[in-house]
Amino acid sequence: MAHHPHAFLPGASKRLEALSDGVFAIACTLLVLEIKIPHFGHGLSLAEQWNMLMQDDVLPSIAAFAFSFLNILVFWTNHDAINKVIVRYDTKTTYLNIVFLLFISLIPFTTAFLRENLDSFIANAFYGSVLMFASVIAVMMYHHLAFKAKLFLPEVTMISRKRVYRQVISGPVLFLIAIAAGLINNNISIVIYAITPISFMFLPQLDFDTKEEEIKKEHQA
Amino acid sequence: MAHHPHAFLPGASKRLEALSDGVFAIACTLLVLEIKIPHFGHGLSLAEQWNMLMQDDVLPSIAAFAFSFLNILVFWTNHDAINKVIVRYDTKTTYLNIVFLLFISLIPFTTAFLRENLDSFIANAFYGSVLMFASVIAVMMYHHLAFKAKLFLPEVTMISRKRVYRQVISGPVLFLIAIAAGLINNNISIVIYAITPISFMFLPQLDFDTKEEEIKKEHQA
Amino acid sequence: MAHHPHAFLPGASKRLEALSDGVFAIACTLLVLEIKIPHFGHGLSLAEQWNMLMQDDVLPSIAAFAFSFLNILVFWTNHDAINKVIVRYDTKTTYLNIVFLLFISLIPFTTAFLRENLDSFIANAFYGSVLMFASVIAVMMYHHLAFKAKLFLPEVTMISRKRVYRQVISGPVLFLIAIAAGLINNNISIVIYAITPISFMFLPQLDFDTKEEEIKKEHQA
Amino acid sequence: MAHHPHAFLPGASKRLEALSDGVFAIACTLLVLEIKIPHFGHGLSLAEQWNMLMQDDVLPSIAAFAFSFLNILVFWTNHDAINKVIVRYDTKTTYLNIVFLLFISLIPFTTAFLRENLDSFIANAFYGSVLMFASVIAVMMYHHLAFKAKLFLPEVTMISRKRVYRQVISGPVLFLIAIAAGLINNNISIVIYAITPISFMFLPQLDFDTKEEEIKKEHQA
Repeated sequence: MAHHPHAFLPGASKRLEALSDGVFAIACTLLVLEIKIPHFGHGLSLAEQWNMLMQDDVLPSIAAFAFSFLNILVFWTNHDAINKVIVRYDTKTTYLNIVFLLFISLIPFTTAFLRENLDSFIANAFYGSVLMFASVIAVMMYHHLAFKAKLFLPEVTMISRKRVYRQVISGPVLFLIAIAAGLINNNISIVIYAITPISFMFLPQLDFDTKEEEIKKEHQA
Repeated sequence: MAHHPHAFLPGASKRLEALSDGVFAIACTLLVLEIKIPHFGHGLSLAEQWNMLMQDDVLPSIAAFAFSFLNILVFWTNHDAINKVIVRYDTKTTYLNIVFLLFISLIPFTTAFLRENLDSFIANAFYGSVLMFASVIAVMMYHHLAFKAKLFLPEVTMISRKRVYRQVISGPVLFLIAIAAGLINNNISIVIYAITPISFMFLPQLDFDTKEEEIKKEHQA
Repeated sequence: MAHHPHAFLPGASKRLEALSDGVFAIACTLLVLEIKIPHFGHGLSLAEQWNMLMQDDVLPSIAAFAFSFLNILVFWTNHDAINKVIVRYDTKTTYLNIVFLLFISLIPFTTAFLRENLDSFIANAFYGSVLMFASVIAVMMYHHLAFKAKLFLPEVTMISRKRVYRQVISGPVLFLIAIAAGLINNNISIVIYAITPISFMFLPQLDFDTKEEEIKKEHQA
Repeated sequence: MAHHPHAFLPGASKRLEALSDGVFAIACTLLVLEIKIPHFGHGLSLAEQWNMLMQDDVLPSIAAFAFSFLNILVFWTNHDAINKVIVRYDTKTTYLNIVFLLFISLIPFTTAFLRENLDSFIANAFYGSVLMFASVIAVMMYHHLAFKAKLFLPEVTMISRKRVYRQVISGPVLFLIAIAAGLINNNISIVIYAITPISFMFLPQLDFDTKEEEIKKEHQA
């Protein structure tokens, strides 16, 4: 009588991906509900209408929408990139992933909160903290998958695992700096929030050691 | 002229999983829409802003969000775990699953209802009943799949099926106790709501009898 | 230089299913947003709270939620059942399916509209018409797939195709009767809305002619 | 030590499709939340109820819903058609796709904005610009996949790639004309918004050169 880890059965991680993709898609699309719909009275000039868009926070709302949308989906691209090189999810990764999704799905709230209170350190700290905790959990997941549980494909070289790790741990650090900067001026924080996802668009690539791959195959043959 | 059960065709249960994952993802992400977005006036001190967060129920809302989010996704992990060891869905399981999803998608409502009325026994009973009915349906699905319709992979040992079943039936019992406790004090209920999902994070594992598996293969050869 | 119908490439119909599952899942889960969240003042007795639930339309809202949720998912089960026996989607089916989804996603609106105006013939006619049009499109899809474009698996016997068709065309007829009944009394309509999906839970099964299948294989060999 | 492009691993593009299908499904279903739910008082005649539907913008809301729903899903059908003939997604396509989804998920906002302000050039220009930018990104994706990065299946003939391209680039041009027409009269724009998606329902088909395919296979043998 032996233990079959469930995750080795085919399709074992497909549903965690499906759930994650669903939460990512909903979180970024729900953001649109926070944009206010302006109602121009009759007989307003174009200039008056434009002013109303600015005063009613319509344009800032759209900017905040675009901003958080891209933030969420840069998290997604990295989630997807890591996902491609892992063998399977274990229980720990599953629960880390669930907590990660909890923070992702809070972003529509923190986006609306910050947009409504652009000068407030508290609103800024909420926005930054959710991004920071999401990236802390991402670091924990990466560390567990790549180094502790060894759930990465064995061909992924240790050198490239460490190279990507150094980039991954910069995420929480940058968000922490952003929150602290809010004590001086919220605009500094906002600039950091804008730069961080862009820097994460270009994660160093994971390398595959094909020699090791061939050696392994020979052993199995 | 023979009957081909539809479900034996490839991909037969994929769509029920996709629908379920969608409902789980939406139910847990919609919760964020229930969090109120505070609007601080200009010139409020940090302390005044913080008080406003407490008075306007923002922090309790976030706690309620996190709470129900985890509740929904612990249901998901068990749904996923069972799903991995079944051969296919039959019609009865499909309809039980649909009623199960109905209760899952009511959770955003009961969460908001309880949060708005933390002292009310009725609000508490609504919250607990939805969780209780969801877990009653889960028990029915498990019993049907594992014992009556024999839709589990045949290698899953009967001993481990029964072991998991004993844990599964504890769900509705705990939620019923939680509702009854609300007659004394809602806070007792809330503690039980918090403990129950945690206890379900660690379902005993289903075992696979590989000997039986080998014997079966020999018979087929 | 030959035409490869796109749909023959592997995974050709997977995305139409994914889109459909998404719309079904969202439509039925969004319904929960229409339930009003009651706020009991302090010091209300249990009886007063219960009365408030009735007066504020909370219980009718939950009934309407459950009702339309099951309606949407019975449509889904039939969509899924047909989907299992088809070879591929052609362009016509794709567009019929999109219009079908349009009506499905209107159900959260018509549910709220009818619940707010239980005595109004117009609200009733809106509710019934959306269900009727959805089932008319379903009939068109079934007819096209099963008889005209011959996109069903060839093993599905013609006798069982026709048997299921007779049941499928009863859908629009029943919804039309329900709308007409609203001219007398909306409650009659509501009873018909409740019975129709239940009758669709038990579609006659499609049969597979395995002899035909074997003959075909011999011809190909 | 060699670079394995991630995308060659199996299932490499499945999640981008899943995310896209999720955003498409949510964007088109969220539109329903923008329809106002009328509340008829007691004792209103049918004629009075019908007038109220017109005055409260219920019917125009439903028209706007249907309109944008079809717009979004025509984008989807083309997204799906292109997707069927590509080998894999590269990083550039992934980010273009994310920006494309950003514009798709803005459509519920621009729909509500235009419906509320049918006479306003600004609301019209917002509506048209989002469609125009979405189709500009679609053109960029097509050009990159078909001509620059050569990520189309090699059997797709160059002649048919160019034929489809000529149709694809007409999208942004038509939307630009629609916006400009709003300077004269918004109704002209609305007619163009209605015609454009219909014209995109009938994209010329991509041809497959099977001879080339056979030759290639011989070379590999």
